Amino acid sequence: MKNYKIAVIPGDGIGIEVMNEGIKVLNTLSKLNKDIAFNFDWYDWGCEYYLKHGKMMDEDGLEKLKKYDAILLGAVGFPGVPDHISLRDLLLKIRQGFNQYINLRPIKLLTAQDCPLKNKKVEDIDMVFVRENTEGEYAGVGGFQREGTKDEVALQTSVFTRKTTEKVMEYAFQLAKSRKKLNKVTSVTKSNALNYSMVFWDRIFKEKSNVYTDIKTESFHVDATSMYMLQRPESFDVVVASNLFGDILTDLGATLQGGLGFAAGANINPEREYPSMFEPVHGSAPEIAGKGLANPIAMIWTAKMMLDFLGHEDLGERIMKSIVEALNNREKLTPDLGGSGTTNEVGDRICKIIENIG
Amino acid sequence: MKNYKIAVIPGDGIGIEVMNEGIKVLNTLSKLNKDIAFNFDWYDWGCEYYLKHGKMMDEDGLEKLKKYDAILLGAVGFPGVPDHISLRDLLLKIRQGFNQYINLRPIKLLTAQDCPLKNKKVEDIDMVFVRENTEGEYAGVGGFQREGTKDEVALQTSVFTRKTTEKVMEYAFQLAKSRKKLNKVTSVTKSNALNYSMVFWDRIFKEKSNVYTDIKTESFHVDATSMYMLQRPESFDVVVASNLFGDILTDLGATLQGGLGFAAGANINPEREYPSMFEPVHGSAPEIAGKGLANPIAMIWTAKMMLDFLGHEDLGERIMKSIVEALNNREKLTPDLGGSGTTNEVGDRICKIIENIG
Ligand SMILES: CC(C)[C@H](C(=O)O)[C@@H](O)C(=O)O
Ligand SMILES: CC(C)[C@H](C(=O)O)[C@@H](O)C(=O)O
Repeated sequence: MKNYKIAVIPGDGIGIEVMNEGIKVLNTLSKLNKDIAFNFDWYDWGCEYYLKHGKMMDEDGLEKLKKYDAILLGAVGFPGVPDHISLRDLLLKIRQGFNQYINLRPIKLLTAQDCPLKNKKVEDIDMVFVRENTEGEYAGVGGFQREGTKDEVALQTSVFTRKTTEKVMEYAFQLAKSRKKLNKVTSVTKSNALNYSMVFWDRIFKEKSNVYTDIKTESFHVDATSMYMLQRPESFDVVVASNLFGDILTDLGATLQGGLGFAAGANINPEREYPSMFEPVHGSAPEIAGKGLANPIAMIWTAKMMLDFLGHEDLGERIMKSIVEALNNREKLTPDLGGSGTTNEVGDRICKIIENIG
Repeated sequence: MKNYKIAVIPGDGIGIEVMNEGIKVLNTLSKLNKDIAFNFDWYDWGCEYYLKHGKMMDEDGLEKLKKYDAILLGAVGFPGVPDHISLRDLLLKIRQGFNQYINLRPIKLLTAQDCPLKNKKVEDIDMVFVRENTEGEYAGVGGFQREGTKDEVALQTSVFTRKTTEKVMEYAFQLAKSRKKLNKVTSVTKSNALNYSMVFWDRIFKEKSNVYTDIKTESFHVDATSMYMLQRPESFDVVVASNLFGDILTDLGATLQGGLGFAAGANINPEREYPSMFEPVHGSAPEIAGKGLANPIAMIWTAKMMLDFLGHEDLGERIMKSIVEALNNREKLTPDLGGSGTTNEVGDRICKIIENIG
C-alpha cells in the first residue's frame, strides 16, 4: 500500500475550482484501488494571502513543501497584485527553488471538433513539449538605468547554463526514444538574432544529437516553428525549447488542442531531489472565476501526469480514457466546449466514468 | 515628375526571384504613369558575396545606401553561412544602422480559402503589427563565460530604451487613429516573467494610453496573444510588440493570412533621416530557391508598401486590387497556393491586370 503525501496549492481564481475536481478524481481512484492512498495538505498561498500577509507564501514555504511526494498547483495571479510579484514569489520560486528544470506539456487533440484548424484528424496533433523551466529568459536578472528619466534604459538578461541546457536536451532525447512516434526531437532556436543564448543552445543541441544518433533531429527558429505548428502539426514529436519559447509555443499548442481547458503540465525535477509540481497551463482566469464555468479537464489531466510520475501509469490511462469518454456528451461539458455543465458537474461525470470503467 | 532612386538588394535564394517580380510591377506602374519614375541600383550583397569577399556587404555599405529614397530587399541567408553572420551583418545592420525602428507588418486575409482556421471570413483577419525593430531582444549584447567548459554560461541581454519604446508606441497609436477599424492598440507583454524589460514596456504603454485617450487599449502576455490571434483574430486592430515578440507573432499572423507568400513588411525610419527598407517577411527559402516556385505576392505587396510610404497610395491601391484579382484564378498561382504557375508567370499576370485596370 502506497501512501502519498501531496501538497495542494489551489492558488487563485479558477485554480481553486479546478483543484477540487482534480482531488475528487484522485480520491475516486484511491477508493477503487486499496493499494494507493493520498494524504492532501492544503496551503492557502496566493494573492488573497498576499493581500492579508504581504507575502505570497510563507518564508519557509519551500522548507515546508520539501517533504511531499508531489505538489499540485491550481493557478496563481489575481487583479490587485502585480503579476511579476504573484508569479515570481510563488510559482517561479517553486519551479526554480526545487530545480524543476523540466516543464513537460503534452499537446494532444482528443476530438477533432475542438481543433480550430481546418481538416485535422485527432492523430495529427500529438506532440510533447520539453520546456526548460528554471533559467534562460526567466532568470530575473536585469535592471533600470536612469530610471524615470527620458534617457531610461531597461535591461533584461537571459542566463543559460550548460548544465541545465544539457539535461533538458537529454530529457527530450530520452522521451523521443520512449514515445515511439517519429523518434524525433525538434529544437526551437532564434540564433539568427539572439547571437549568444541561441547560438549556445544550438551548439549543445548539436552535441546531444551526435550522441543520440538513433533519434532524428531538426531545428527551427521560433517564428518558423509557430508557423509549422499550424501548417504541419503532424510532423512534430518531441519539441525542446527554452523557457520563454516553450511558454509561447505551448499556449499556441493548447489552442490547437481546443484551448487551455485541455492543457496539462508538469514541472519536474527528474533527479527527485525535490518534489515535482503538477500544474495546468491555464492561469487563474479572474474574469470567469467563482462561477463554475472553468473547465476542469486540464487539472484532471494534470493529476494523471502526477500519477504517471509516481509510477501509476495504469491509473493515468484510466483517467485519460474517462476524459475522452466524457467528451462524447458535449452538452454536459463546460461552456468553453459548447456545453452547459459546471466545473463541479464535469468533475462528477469523469469520476462516475472512472468508477464504471472499473 | 517624381524620379525615385531605389537601392535593390535581392540577397539570397528566392529573394532574387521575387525581387524581379517586384521590380516588374513597379516598372509597369511607371510606364502607365508618366509622372513617376524609378532608378534602380542593384547591389549583389548577400551570402554568395560573403563567400567570395568574406563580408556580407561593403564596409561603406551604409554610406552607399544613404542617398536612396528607399531600399528594396529580397531575403538574406543561405546554407554555408551561419545565420547569425548573414543576418547580423546585413539585414540587422541596415535596420539598426538606419534607425528603422518601426517594422510594419499588415496581417490581412485576401481570400477565405487561404486561412487555415475554420469558419473565417476575409474581414475577420485584418490587423497590423507595429514591431520595434532596432533594439530590445535583438540588441546583440551578451557573451559566454567559461566557454567550452562544463560550467559554461551564456548571457544575452535585451536593451530597451525609453526613447525608442515611446516612439514605437506613438506610431502605433497614430496608426490606430488613422485606420478607423476598432480604434484600438493591443500591447504584447510578458511582464509576469520578464520583470525588467516588460515591466518597463508596460509602464510606457500605460503612459501613452493616458495621452491617447480616444484610443482603446489592451495588454496581453505574448503566450495569451498567440492564443487569441487564433481564437478571435477579429478583435485585433493595431498590435504593438517588441522586436522578438513581433517577430514570432507576425509569422503566426502570416500563417493566418495563408502563409509567408502573403506577408509583406516595411522597416521604417519615420523621421526620414535615413532611407526606409521594404522587405517581405519570408526568408530566402533555400529548399525551393532557383526553381520558379516562390510566390512573389509578398514582394509585390511590399512594393505597394514602399509606394504608400513615398506618398503614392493610389498606386498602392492598384497593386492590391490586382493581387486580389489574380487570386481568383487559382491554377495560375504558385504551388503554395495550389496552382502550377511560376514566380515569373504570377508576376506577369499581376502586371497585366494592373495594365487592364488602367
Ligand atoms: C504565469 C506565467 C509566469 C507562466 C510562465 O510564463 O511560465 C505561465 O504562462 C505558464 O506557462 O506556466
Ligand atoms: C531573419 C531574421 C533575423 C528576421 C528577424 O528575426 O527579424 C526575420 O525573421 C524577420 O522577421 O524579418
